[in-house]
Amino acid sequence: MTGATPLYLDCDTGIDDALALAYLLASPEVHVAGIGTVSGNVSAAVAAENTQALLALAGREEIPVAVGSTDPLRGTFAGGSPDVHGQNGLGGVSLEPATARPDPRDAVDLLIDLARQYPGELRILAIGPLTNLAQAIEREPELPALVRDVVVMGGAVLAPGNVSAVAEANIANDPEAAAAVLSADWDVMLVPLDVTMEHTLDELGRRRLLEAPEAISRAVGESLEAYLDRYLQVYGYRACALHDPLAAALLVGTVQPTRAPRVPVVVDHSDGPGRGQTIADMRGQRRGPVDVPGARCQVVLETDLQVGPVLLDRLAGPPVA
Amino acid sequence: MTGATPLYLDCDTGIDDALALAYLLASPEVHVAGIGTVSGNVSAAVAAENTQALLALAGREEIPVAVGSTDPLRGTFAGGSPDVHGQNGLGGVSLEPATARPDPRDAVDLLIDLARQYPGELRILAIGPLTNLAQAIEREPELPALVRDVVVMGGAVLAPGNVSAVAEANIANDPEAAAAVLSADWDVMLVPLDVTMEHTLDELGRRRLLEAPEAISRAVGESLEAYLDRYLQVYGYRACALHDPLAAALLVGTVQPTRAPRVPVVVDHSDGPGRGQTIADMRGQRRGPVDVPGARCQVVLETDLQVGPVLLDRLAGPPVA
Repeated sequence: MTGATPLYLDCDTGIDDALALAYLLASPEVHVAGIGTVSGNVSAAVAAENTQALLALAGREEIPVAVGSTDPLRGTFAGGSPDVHGQNGLGGVSLEPATARPDPRDAVDLLIDLARQYPGELRILAIGPLTNLAQAIEREPELPALVRDVVVMGGAVLAPGNVSAVAEANIANDPEAAAAVLSADWDVMLVPLDVTMEHTLDELGRRRLLEAPEAISRAVGESLEAYLDRYLQVYGYRACALHDPLAAALLVGTVQPTRAPRVPVVVDHSDGPGRGQTIADMRGQRRGPVDVPGARCQVVLETDLQVGPVLLDRLAGPPVA
Repeated sequence: MTGATPLYLDCDTGIDDALALAYLLASPEVHVAGIGTVSGNVSAAVAAENTQALLALAGREEIPVAVGSTDPLRGTFAGGSPDVHGQNGLGGVSLEPATARPDPRDAVDLLIDLARQYPGELRILAIGPLTNLAQAIEREPELPALVRDVVVMGGAVLAPGNVSAVAEANIANDPEAAAAVLSADWDVMLVPLDVTMEHTLDELGRRRLLEAPEAISRAVGESLEAYLDRYLQVYGYRACALHDPLAAALLVGTVQPTRAPRVPVVVDHSDGPGRGQTIADMRGQRRGPVDVPGARCQVVLETDLQVGPVLLDRLAGPPVA
């Protein structure tokens, strides 16, 4: 791990979270120093069970996994997305429970400890609701100054939302937390549906995962079966969006943003019809991407590569004939 | 006027309103039966003055012009857009004041009277804030049943707004009214920035108006000079968006919508950051336009023709060499 960038992963594992995790574990550029879980696709507790079972498959049970917030900052956890991710979050695929116990700390303390352990170096990848990050800023106001940057899968900027006409699930599950995280004094790369919906994995890709050398990749390949079914109505063919894996690859650097202006972003945490929307000010972008002075949030709209083949290059065996 | 469709125009004249009016007067398909004004680009009173001066230039002072609401349903008129339309709403071009007086009725009563005069036939073209229409529904709840349909220039669906990141001026100037109009029991065609920003007129087009046979066209051509300057920063060349003329041509039928699904639309009239946004539910449109059962609002996203040449064909002389 010498020279690898220390990374804190915040997740609600989740099928595409599992794929992102498998990719991070296979990426020498980063060192997964700790993982916190949050309620989103499943509860924070189930997300930790899933994460630890996946780490066990990968032989990486030394990575601390801390359970984070069950409820959003306001209100209570609504039960997740069993229609998308299955009852257990992994599309009904049963993994051997891990023998490792969750870290005794909560996810917030784990994140703060890692930020202090790696000042100026730690990167955060948040692929679930932003509850833990918001609570960490509240518990340790110096956190933004300690962290190198934050990559967030979330939001819908000019594209439609997925849980309302304008809101994406990660942001909508805790708009108050998202508002705090996106207005904090750190650099954020936001990876919204605008770009993640354009990155897909189809059945042929899934079959390559099923034949992959690593058990974690094969397990994720199995869990993807239901996920592909779920997206049939969206794309018109069996392919799923690679939301979380794209955010992971953008953090690792194997996929680069090609259109990603830094613009003012606010989160609608009103009780109006736009609740949960990420309002990024895209006025002034008609003639090409322009960074707005002072804006710290980079909104990724296009990338150089499709993340699907990038993932498969690291995780899977050769293409299936 | 035999066979021509009776039309009530609601406007806040305004440079592009003036161009839309000139086009409607030159269109045998419609009979402009009455015009109501509303505060938007300028105050309702100034909009009436501008409208009557334009009608005088066109020799059409018999068309009744009724002054409508100065203030939106909530709050007070904020002063218009002198930065876009000039202090007088016509880019600083001074027209001879009309000798005709405004109609003694207010715009709301004029609209209601016309709806009763032409039951099932009257069409409404609204190219300003929707205050008058909302008040007319309140004053005469049968209005939606009496009117054939409503074409509204307004909103921003997936495109950025123009007065906030997500809000377009006509809707943002009176979100409560827009909410009432878009939820009433009538067919609405919404012509948002998504499509109007793609329809432009440049300096060559303006010069053709300056050489047009009709005085009203030449006057509009003069008023467009400042408007083109204003848009230079948006497009990067001297060309202006044809917001209101596009809505007019879609009503007349000389431009046809080619991508225009009927979808649920709500207006954010909260006090959150999305206030004034038209939230159209575009989920489910990825594989092509799909009308959502029960939705009465058709959102125009693409058209068969550019409206610029369509306008110039009717209003202007031959192309300038």
